[in-house]
Amino acid sequence: MTSYAHFQSLRFCDERSGLGLDLSHMGFSREALDALAGPMALAFSEMEALEKGSTANPDEGRKVGHFWLRTPRLTAAPEARKIHDNVTAISDFAGKIHEGYHRPSTALLFDQVVQIGIGGSALGPRFLVDALAGQGEGLEFHCLDNTDPDGCARLIARLGDGLRRTLVLVVSKSGATCETRNGMLEFRHAMETQGFEFAKHAVAVTGAGSHLDALAQEQGWLARFPIPEWVGGRFSLCSSVGLLPAALTKVDINLLLAGASAMDDSTRSRDLFENPAALLAAAIHISGDGRGDRDMVVLPYRDRLALLGCYLQQLFMESLGKNKDRQGNVTQQGITVYGNKGSTDQHAFVQQLREGLDRFFVCFVRVLEDGETSGIFVETGSTSGDFLDGFWLGTRAALSENDRPNLTISLPRLSAFEFGALIALFERTVGLYASLIDINAYHQPGVEAGKKAAAGALLLSKRILAELTESPIEADALAERIGAGTDAETCFLILERLAANPKRSSVRRCQEGWLRDRKS
Amino acid sequence: MTSYAHFQSLRFCDERSGLGLDLSHMGFSREALDALAGPMALAFSEMEALEKGSTANPDEGRKVGHFWLRTPRLTAAPEARKIHDNVTAISDFAGKIHEGYHRPSTALLFDQVVQIGIGGSALGPRFLVDALAGQGEGLEFHCLDNTDPDGCARLIARLGDGLRRTLVLVVSKSGATCETRNGMLEFRHAMETQGFEFAKHAVAVTGAGSHLDALAQEQGWLARFPIPEWVGGRFSLCSSVGLLPAALTKVDINLLLAGASAMDDSTRSRDLFENPAALLAAAIHISGDGRGDRDMVVLPYRDRLALLGCYLQQLFMESLGKNKDRQGNVTQQGITVYGNKGSTDQHAFVQQLREGLDRFFVCFVRVLEDGETSGIFVETGSTSGDFLDGFWLGTRAALSENDRPNLTISLPRLSAFEFGALIALFERTVGLYASLIDINAYHQPGVEAGKKAAAGALLLSKRILAELTESPIEADALAERIGAGTDAETCFLILERLAANPKRSSVRRCQEGWLRDRKS
Repeated sequence: MTSYAHFQSLRFCDERSGLGLDLSHMGFSREALDALAGPMALAFSEMEALEKGSTANPDEGRKVGHFWLRTPRLTAAPEARKIHDNVTAISDFAGKIHEGYHRPSTALLFDQVVQIGIGGSALGPRFLVDALAGQGEGLEFHCLDNTDPDGCARLIARLGDGLRRTLVLVVSKSGATCETRNGMLEFRHAMETQGFEFAKHAVAVTGAGSHLDALAQEQGWLARFPIPEWVGGRFSLCSSVGLLPAALTKVDINLLLAGASAMDDSTRSRDLFENPAALLAAAIHISGDGRGDRDMVVLPYRDRLALLGCYLQQLFMESLGKNKDRQGNVTQQGITVYGNKGSTDQHAFVQQLREGLDRFFVCFVRVLEDGETSGIFVETGSTSGDFLDGFWLGTRAALSENDRPNLTISLPRLSAFEFGALIALFERTVGLYASLIDINAYHQPGVEAGKKAAAGALLLSKRILAELTESPIEADALAERIGAGTDAETCFLILERLAANPKRSSVRRCQEGWLRDRKS
Repeated sequence: MTSYAHFQSLRFCDERSGLGLDLSHMGFSREALDALAGPMALAFSEMEALEKGSTANPDEGRKVGHFWLRTPRLTAAPEARKIHDNVTAISDFAGKIHEGYHRPSTALLFDQVVQIGIGGSALGPRFLVDALAGQGEGLEFHCLDNTDPDGCARLIARLGDGLRRTLVLVVSKSGATCETRNGMLEFRHAMETQGFEFAKHAVAVTGAGSHLDALAQEQGWLARFPIPEWVGGRFSLCSSVGLLPAALTKVDINLLLAGASAMDDSTRSRDLFENPAALLAAAIHISGDGRGDRDMVVLPYRDRLALLGCYLQQLFMESLGKNKDRQGNVTQQGITVYGNKGSTDQHAFVQQLREGLDRFFVCFVRVLEDGETSGIFVETGSTSGDFLDGFWLGTRAALSENDRPNLTISLPRLSAFEFGALIALFERTVGLYASLIDINAYHQPGVEAGKKAAAGALLLSKRILAELTESPIEADALAERIGAGTDAETCFLILERLAANPKRSSVRRCQEGWLRDRKS
């Protein structure tokens, strides 16, 4: 086969979304895809069952229904109505914010919005707003996605006087995420210090009946929007989690949902070669031998898509990074994802991609329409956009020349429609790939251990603070005294930090202890 | 050995910088480090030779002297004077900007600064300003690091009326970086369209005598600052590349240089156990078996350090990702680097780190002082900062429990001093590690191929535009006609994009061609 024929044989175009998928530089032939048709048929069946409401997350005993968010008729009528009504409610609410019907306590209009959330409640919305929001339209978006007091203080300082025109979205499905709760308390404190009422600025986005939901109701927050039980954090972009900030920043949420729905339609096809998600999942499977042997390096050639790599890092690694298959057998799965944007990364790590470790494939994303552009020629007959696309072609050729596998997703343009389609494509890809490797993509059991250990450390920290006296003491002796002898190391580390923050009451004493200890 | 004794035996503190290094959770003992003392002695000698001015980059026939930037006396007196004078010139210039001595053509003060650069001319400065700049002090910083016309238009829209108060730094050592040139032309166009003179807003940061330097001189730009020939892009943070935006955003550049210099002093020690960079290089070498078998996942627990992962991605992957050792033998080296920040990533990909693929080590960065903080308790007796540190302890414990190697760098606080020390630590670590694996860390031969292929694609694009007529034509036939028959695929891809941008003259014709072709 000529190289052009090979190219044409592995180049696919989804008519509904306009999205193209080029697998011709992945180092395999069409026959390799054919060979996966059998396993993929099973994956299709599992996906069908999922969409019909089978319980896919036995750990948490819940369904997985993010697909329903864009095609409500797939689920039971009362639920479907709720989904539909919520989209309307979000649009209405955003309209009332924009028109000044809802207004801040001491200003005429809200013009800033802060999303307080972490993980799925932050990454997707940040990516979405960065990709789609226009300049100077709607509210200016900010995100607080950590419990770093310095980061929070910096954001509040950045808002400055704008704090009194700031709408705060507190986003947590469980309503019990510590980082989010802390961020909310910091913002409440800052607002109250400046003399205006937090409740008049606050919106809760949370599971119905959660602690946060109850709090918001009790305190009379501006609004509450639900996160359905059957939507996981990393799949929540088409729920209130993503739609609310989108609507507030004047992104067309109906277009977004339409794009996702169109892609869902296409990726329901049971014909591998007609199904972009199945093709992508198969390509990833072949490339990494079903064991994640190759990282996915995400390189979108569009500044607005610079957060795609982070978004997919969560979607893939939290879904696929598991130590047990669905039969309970020990395994070690995952796909490592990283990347920022082209052509920028060409000047950063592409050196290693071309010449160094050969343990990855590149997922290029190319947007055919240039978007906003001055249209000027930067060289005779060439625009900045010609250069951008030229660099994509160049990097692709340079990688292929050295047999580094790479695929390209092309979008005809970057509107909310294509963005929705892209999200839906990857969500479905992860689900199908998980079926192929027989793991549950919809839970995250490994996350609990860290939270538990963190709670233990916080408790230990309190016990240390309570125990410290004026007399210096070694960390291990202190650990013994409070009955944490096996954890002298953690005591030492906690003391080390307390010593560095002398504003806190007991700290000078503790500092001496640490200093003495360090010199020993 | 008890676990506490093990911890103490692999915990190091650098007195000069206050930086701590904890290698106790890397899964090796102190003896494993001892075993590297021999190879490390050679690495120390090579580093000494480098600092004394040996030609370390034979490809480009140049010296490698980023160390001299913070300790000028290490190099010849005339060069040392130049370095010193440049720091003074940068401070003076920034002062004159802040005071309004230099002012925009149609406003009283510059209050915005845009750094136009890519790779080493963008990543480091972005990281630096994000980590250190205060709110509302100095100029507000933006960066244009691509040739995406839409990204550029978005930045110009974001500046809005502020464009007339915008200082533009055009940063390219060679003065011939296409992306940077394009960004400059886009900004010049935007400013001229609004009727003010670009030269009065522009500063060149480039190698003396480069094309950009000549252009700036000829057009009478506001200022020019040099990038010495012996400073590579990814090592250029302490040159004008980083110092100028730092000074403009009121970062204390002398403190930054002092921190880097202090770390350079410490990492000149020939005693492995007294040298933080050698310890870090050794730990990375042991962990990845000298072949990069383990990725480095960078998790700083401080919002201000969120770009550290991207910065190190470039520093490590461009330096170490090579296909030949220094003897010319074929090899395949590199270390894959990714990561954002803690505790945020705990809610993204830590699931995979704890349970999935075991092919990484984590490099935690912990900052002991909380920084700006409200000081409020978010739970009885606990602050947001207690939670942040608790989550670090929790994630560390959860990873160690599953034998995932991790190390921790701790900084007493995050001032320009510690930031400088951190940069110098990693720069030296990369150099020593490269010696251990016998590769040249100071060139990037693999980058040329992509640039060359991109230039070819741009040329092909022009030939296609010149050849298109009213009659539809297949991509492969067109390729034949213009003598690019072996590259029908590239012709197809170029046509595909041209068709999507109908504003361009020849495109409607070309669109038909492409559409016909696509349907065939």
